[in-house]
Amino acid sequence: MKNAVGRDIPEYLLTNGKEVYQGKNYMDGKYIQKASPKTLRYEKPQESKIVETVAEALKQCGAKDGMTFSFHHHLREGDGVANIVMKAAIEELGLKDLTIAATSLGGAHDPIAQYIADGKIIGIQTSGIRGKVGEVVSAGKLATPAIIRSHGGRPRAIEAGEVHIDIAFVAAPTSDCVGNCRGIGGKSNCGSLGYAMLDTKYADKVVVVTDTLVDFPNFPASIEAIDVDAVVVVDSIGNPAKIAGGAAKMSQNPRDLMMAENVAKVIASTPWFKDGFSFQTGVGGPSLAANIFIEQEMKKRNIKMGWAIGGICSSMVDMLKRGLVGKVIDVQDFDLDAVNSINQTPNHFEMSASQYANPANKGAMVNKLDFVVLAALEVDTKFNVNVLTGSDGVLRGAPGGHPDTAAGSKVCIIVTPLIRGRMATICENVVTVTTPGDCVDVVVTDYGIAVNPLRPDLIECLDNAGIPHVSIESLCEKAYSLVGTPDDLQWEDRVVAVLEARDGTILDVVRKIKPYDPNEE
Amino acid sequence: MKNAVGRDIPEYLLTNGKEVYQGKNYMDGKYIQKASPKTLRYEKPQESKIVETVAEALKQCGAKDGMTFSFHHHLREGDGVANIVMKAAIEELGLKDLTIAATSLGGAHDPIAQYIADGKIIGIQTSGIRGKVGEVVSAGKLATPAIIRSHGGRPRAIEAGEVHIDIAFVAAPTSDCVGNCRGIGGKSNCGSLGYAMLDTKYADKVVVVTDTLVDFPNFPASIEAIDVDAVVVVDSIGNPAKIAGGAAKMSQNPRDLMMAENVAKVIASTPWFKDGFSFQTGVGGPSLAANIFIEQEMKKRNIKMGWAIGGICSSMVDMLKRGLVGKVIDVQDFDLDAVNSINQTPNHFEMSASQYANPANKGAMVNKLDFVVLAALEVDTKFNVNVLTGSDGVLRGAPGGHPDTAAGSKVCIIVTPLIRGRMATICENVVTVTTPGDCVDVVVTDYGIAVNPLRPDLIECLDNAGIPHVSIESLCEKAYSLVGTPDDLQWEDRVVAVLEARDGTILDVVRKIKPYDPNEE
Repeated sequence: MKNAVGRDIPEYLLTNGKEVYQGKNYMDGKYIQKASPKTLRYEKPQESKIVETVAEALKQCGAKDGMTFSFHHHLREGDGVANIVMKAAIEELGLKDLTIAATSLGGAHDPIAQYIADGKIIGIQTSGIRGKVGEVVSAGKLATPAIIRSHGGRPRAIEAGEVHIDIAFVAAPTSDCVGNCRGIGGKSNCGSLGYAMLDTKYADKVVVVTDTLVDFPNFPASIEAIDVDAVVVVDSIGNPAKIAGGAAKMSQNPRDLMMAENVAKVIASTPWFKDGFSFQTGVGGPSLAANIFIEQEMKKRNIKMGWAIGGICSSMVDMLKRGLVGKVIDVQDFDLDAVNSINQTPNHFEMSASQYANPANKGAMVNKLDFVVLAALEVDTKFNVNVLTGSDGVLRGAPGGHPDTAAGSKVCIIVTPLIRGRMATICENVVTVTTPGDCVDVVVTDYGIAVNPLRPDLIECLDNAGIPHVSIESLCEKAYSLVGTPDDLQWEDRVVAVLEARDGTILDVVRKIKPYDPNEE
Repeated sequence: MKNAVGRDIPEYLLTNGKEVYQGKNYMDGKYIQKASPKTLRYEKPQESKIVETVAEALKQCGAKDGMTFSFHHHLREGDGVANIVMKAAIEELGLKDLTIAATSLGGAHDPIAQYIADGKIIGIQTSGIRGKVGEVVSAGKLATPAIIRSHGGRPRAIEAGEVHIDIAFVAAPTSDCVGNCRGIGGKSNCGSLGYAMLDTKYADKVVVVTDTLVDFPNFPASIEAIDVDAVVVVDSIGNPAKIAGGAAKMSQNPRDLMMAENVAKVIASTPWFKDGFSFQTGVGGPSLAANIFIEQEMKKRNIKMGWAIGGICSSMVDMLKRGLVGKVIDVQDFDLDAVNSINQTPNHFEMSASQYANPANKGAMVNKLDFVVLAALEVDTKFNVNVLTGSDGVLRGAPGGHPDTAAGSKVCIIVTPLIRGRMATICENVVTVTTPGDCVDVVVTDYGIAVNPLRPDLIECLDNAGIPHVSIESLCEKAYSLVGTPDDLQWEDRVVAVLEARDGTILDVVRKIKPYDPNEE
């Protein structure tokens, strides 16, 4: 069945009330009967919940074949906990038919790819999917289609009972002996634990894995002991130096800076750019650079930013410290400056993934957002965005909060170069639709700005401000004229991943692209 | 059927799996399938959830006959919100057959008594029940037995689905336009909002009533906007000057001070009195005075208190500020010094009622408590405590956190004068068992100290420290010799209140005592 972004969704996926994407806000005003966990009553006081090893914790929690384990990715490319747990479950306990429900999987989780190839892991639910895990899934080695959700779609699915977490694992920078956890104060600090919060409320069992045990009570606790069954102390939960990776570096590229300046001009042309406005930006070069130019526009108008949310990195922390933004609230921290500021710098707070972006609660933070500036792998002439699959069709990206902030914000600006190497970024049809075009308002490229015709109000803003803009089709033509019209990718029939819209409908599918040879690399 | 504290529980109450009290920790290790709300999806961004009046909010939330509304009592004797809401529901919307699920009801809620007498309110679930509400319920005017639970039993019952809250009302000192609430920063500050937290997660609908609207986002939020349907701004949510009432005043009575000193001696005689120990005390005169003497004992040993929980008042805040206690964590604040300190003084934090005392989660704070010092209306020779019914059998008390801290702590000390006026406090059988004797360890009176024979370890501690102690029977005999043996109260058959143990079993019932004449006073 074709959905509202023109993607053909196989009928066999449309079971148990699953629908295809019908457009923005289709689920608004409907009800959700929330799910709930079955949990153990610890009426008798326990002095400690510490168990010796992850394997012991798994046994104590009744880990068995077919279970779903959840993980969060606040340590990003430095995360060590998912690997430790899956190794214990599969190699020590001999478990199989496992499903991983992670907030993101990346290069840090390459060891897990082999468990997929071996058929021990049969399900993956995640926002990000990169590295070898992306490759094996793209190659059709996972028994069931991976389910890809946004950071807001994931808590929605958990609350709706579409993901039932048997055991949630918390990679905790600090924990006390009964499981009160914080993201700061330890040796592997990650700052916000926002993605893990809901998991621990909806999982039947919760295991905390920490490398820094602190005195009880570890307050204020991001993860509460009342939800925790076991605490395991390991040598290291990961490498926080790898939190930042390369993504969060400020660009010096003149093209990036030019685009960033145009983003700021577009923002400044709208009526929402006034004292107290709200803002979120991604960590890509030009998105991050937008901060600089927005600050310049703020100075011109003598206004301040009311609040910012994210994915937060050093430039926003710096603005907070200089009094240019009132409050900063993080679901995760993208670099160590942010990690070392959250819950410590006044007005720098933590939030859960549900507070951040869940489209099925009573109003997430993204719903109050004025502006979001986001990157893209591809944007098509229907303003659909792909941030998941590479030009080769392989899974190597992450919807993250992209679809959520795009849908919630008043102005969603995509900033991207027109071409990358020999690939057209602005194209006729994106490989995979991860953010639907009805949520995307403006596209800023190094060859011009396009405004979504669904937003005549923004067209008028740009016209009034004398900001030139062109049609998205003309940007696509220009791109194709530079690098040629791309050949269609050749897919097999088999669906390797289902891309859920944030509301739970099916936005797109990713099919198998080519046979996978594990010895190839 | 007789339960473990010898109370006869009518068979007709033992339906739907309800059991009689079987003793401490009977439910330990069992599972709970948690309940969940049915909530509205606010996918489309809303700028504001403000509605003009409480009546409008009720209509918007689909308020109808037979519903259960929840309230919390952080404004204590100064609370205005429950009255405002019930008046709107009954007098403006004409609703009937309503149930109130409150954390406590007191003199502030006298106007509600008439709605009970009129048959508009047919159910009451609460911890505290005092004032006219207590009188009308005792007089048999409520259509169904009131259900009395401890502060830990209430979140247990909510999580178990035994209380389904249709609409939760939050009396919010501050809220933003979408319902992020805090207990500070407004004109009617109450500090902790700990009792309201769980309600807003389990209620189908949530209405915030505030008298101080603040800028979005009101962070860090004790009540999260993601759970809130409507915000109503009223002139006043209550009178915070009445939070303290008379309860929290430090006693100068020499008998109280002598008892308090003995409490401190008992505590100091145990192995748990060491650096980092944990402590909770009530706000009665002698319990509060115990703080002074415990501080003296701490100085003698050169140790500090690790953490304290409560119900917090100024004396503990003072100890925190002087560095004598590491962390203070409040489910509610008993006076304005505490209100003005929580979330502001370093290491002074807020916790939910579930974190505080719920016996069915994975380990509440009370489970880690070393010492609790509590008051009592009566203690019997089985060490059962009554903090609910007066000597006339009328409901005028509150289990509160009494049964929870008694059960969770390593040493539970009851401090009470042997007689009050012409009434024996130490008696053969308490009017109502609110804390079972198997949770009570030591009773300190002005005529001697008794240790529960269930705790030979404590008897040894006192003996080693040279602290004289007597049998509880001898204290009872002494009391009776002073004021005479009390006559048995004369009850009718009708059960007016069911006293649930914290684990959900039935601990006792309160029967109708005498006909009620509403014109009498």
